[in-house]
Order: sequence, then C-alpha cells, then structure tokens
Amino acid sequence: MHIAILTFQGFNELDSLVALGVLHRIKKPDWRVSLCCPEPQVTSMNGVTVHAQSLLEDARDADAVIVGSGILTREIVATPALMDRLALDPSRQLIAAQCSGTLILARLGLLGQVPACTDLTTKPWVQEAGVEVLNQPFFAQGNVATAGGCLASPYLAAWIIARTEGVEAAAAALHYVAPVGEKEAYVANAMGRISPYLPA
Amino acid sequence: MHIAILTFQGFNELDSLVALGVLHRIKKPDWRVSLCCPEPQVTSMNGVTVHAQSLLEDARDADAVIVGSGILTREIVATPALMDRLALDPSRQLIAAQCSGTLILARLGLLGQVPACTDLTTKPWVQEAGVEVLNQPFFAQGNVATAGGCLASPYLAAWIIARTEGVEAAAAALHYVAPVGEKEAYVANAMGRISPYLPA
Repeated sequence: MHIAILTFQGFNELDSLVALGVLHRIKKPDWRVSLCCPEPQVTSMNGVTVHAQSLLEDARDADAVIVGSGILTREIVATPALMDRLALDPSRQLIAAQCSGTLILARLGLLGQVPACTDLTTKPWVQEAGVEVLNQPFFAQGNVATAGGCLASPYLAAWIIARTEGVEAAAAALHYVAPVGEKEAYVANAMGRISPYLPA
Repeated sequence: MHIAILTFQGFNELDSLVALGVLHRIKKPDWRVSLCCPEPQVTSMNGVTVHAQSLLEDARDADAVIVGSGILTREIVATPALMDRLALDPSRQLIAAQCSGTLILARLGLLGQVPACTDLTTKPWVQEAGVEVLNQPFFAQGNVATAGGCLASPYLAAWIIARTEGVEAAAAALHYVAPVGEKEAYVANAMGRISPYLPA
C-alpha cells in the first residue's frame, strides 16, 4: 500500500504533513507514505525546504494519492509539463484533494459533476472550473474525496485509512493526534464527517 | 520578532510544522518564524528531511521559542552536547513546549512547581522529572506554556500570537487554518483554551 502525497513548490505545510503524520499511524510492513514532488526538493509557501520521497510519476502506481495544496496551484494547473506527469485513475486509486488540490482534480477532469470541498481562497477558481463548492470540511463520492481548510487534512487521511484498514484504525489514528482532553470529542466529530461517505 | 521552533532529529512533523504554519499567518516585515535545528538538516520520526532555518544557538536571542516534540526526546535530554546549546530564559522570552518538548523544559528546570501538559506517551517521563501533568490540551503560567496532543499545536501558536499581537490576531490565524464549515466553533474552542492563561 503506497500513499503518495503530492507536494509541489509553494506547498502548504499543514496540508501535506498533517496528512502524512496521521497516515503514518498505521504500522504495517507494506504501508508506505511518501511526499511526492516534482523535484528532489521543494520549498513551502513559508520557506520550509523538504526532500521528496517519491516523484510525480510514482503517483501513477500508488494505491492512494493525496493532492496537497499551496500558493502556486494556479500556476501548476497552467503548466502542462507538470500536469502531464499526473495520470491519476480513480477506478483503481483512492484520490483525495486538500484545499487548492481540489483545483488540480477539477482541471484533470476527475470531479465531473460531483460537488467538492476546498478552502475559501481557492473556492472561486474551483467554481470557475465548473465545480460546485460545498460549505463543509469533507466530501467524498466513490473513490474521490475533497477537503477544505488546512485542519481538515486529518479527515482526508482518516478516510483513506477507513477505506483500506477500517473505521477502527481510522479512529485510532485520529485519537493519537487529537489534543489531550479533547480526544473523544475530536474523534467523534471527525468520524462523523467521513462516515456518511464510506461504503455501506 | 523571531520565533524559533526547536526541531530535533526524529521530530514530529505535526508539532513543528502546524505551529509554523499558524505563526506565519502574521504578515509583518519584522515577524520571523524559523525551524531551529541542531544540524543543517533533520529527519522526522516518519522519514521527512527538512532544512534548518536557524541553529539551536540562535534560540537564545529569539523572542519566543517553541520546543517541538519527537521520538528521540529522551535521548536528547540525556545528551549534554545538545542541552548545553539551549539557554532559554522565560524572563525575556516566551517559551512554549509541545508534547515531549515538555520533558526538555522539565529537564532544563524551567517548569519548577508549575503543572504542565504533554502527550500520553511522554506523561510518565515528565512525572518522573517531578512535574504534575494535566489532563488538558494547554496550560500557561507567566511566559511558559505547554500543550499536549499533536493537534494542540495551534493553541501554542495562538498563545504566542495573542501575547505579542493580540487576541484578535490569534483568532484570525486560527480561523484561516480551521476546517471549512467548522471555523467559528474551532476558533471559539481554541480561544477558550488559551484565554484563561493570558494576562488580564
């Protein structure tokens, strides 16, 4: 199981790395989570440089892909040299987008007529791409999920865990990262956000 | 205003980088937030390598310091070559510790008889250092604050913003990172956590 977190130049640290931290709560030999970048190093919107753990082409063979967010997403979707490296396929992959990552899914034609979540800044650009934007932190249909607001990224990670390892594993991962003294309430709210979108 | 986020080998991505993201919501020319490391590069508990933006010695001159968390904190507090590089002074600095960072504050003698927050794993080690551990996500007394649970890191960042830029700036930073559709409730809860510990 390889989960690639697409992380471009100008990325939002919270969107990529909160999801990464939550996903790493699954401790199984075949469970791999990677920061998946266009180059060997990328620098965040706030100047933090990180090393790639996989490259964009590797996302094609991943079992799940999270499309991270950042301040350069409008430039990315206008750059065929980057977009052409992505070949995501929701018929065989779980695809999840965080904040402006939703704009990338929209431009790849992966949302179709399905509504989506994104952040308040990206909202008009996603609407311009013909997608209805919801006023909620998480939505999924089939194998495609979207989330809006940096701290909704645990919901995306939990959805991937729930879909692959089950809801108890998802709840346990969220419990670990939740604030002390708020863990039960946090997990109940988060699982309430994703449960309606899990297969029966 | 320089805020140094102490980030050691084996660091927890959420603890260092969520705080960094929230603190960067303040857009002022003299506002600087840095990942402050023992070496030019450090690698997280989940294998993510980041570049330092300042070195441990620079924390002495910072206006505020967040002591991040990680899986090697017990080794760090047992390494004089690292601990001796820290010269934190709550009489002239805001000092905030996240999860196992609380153990570093305890060993530096900065907590005294004051109770503290930490994560559930670190709790027995902090108690062993003679510090009472609270079952809540955030506590502060004077210029020293502690938080427990990865996702309590926005509370530490908001406390630093509230202490330096005011409560409205803190609430605005939290509002930006909160999940869409949960922003008001998130900000109300978070500000309720830190407000009792702000100067009148």
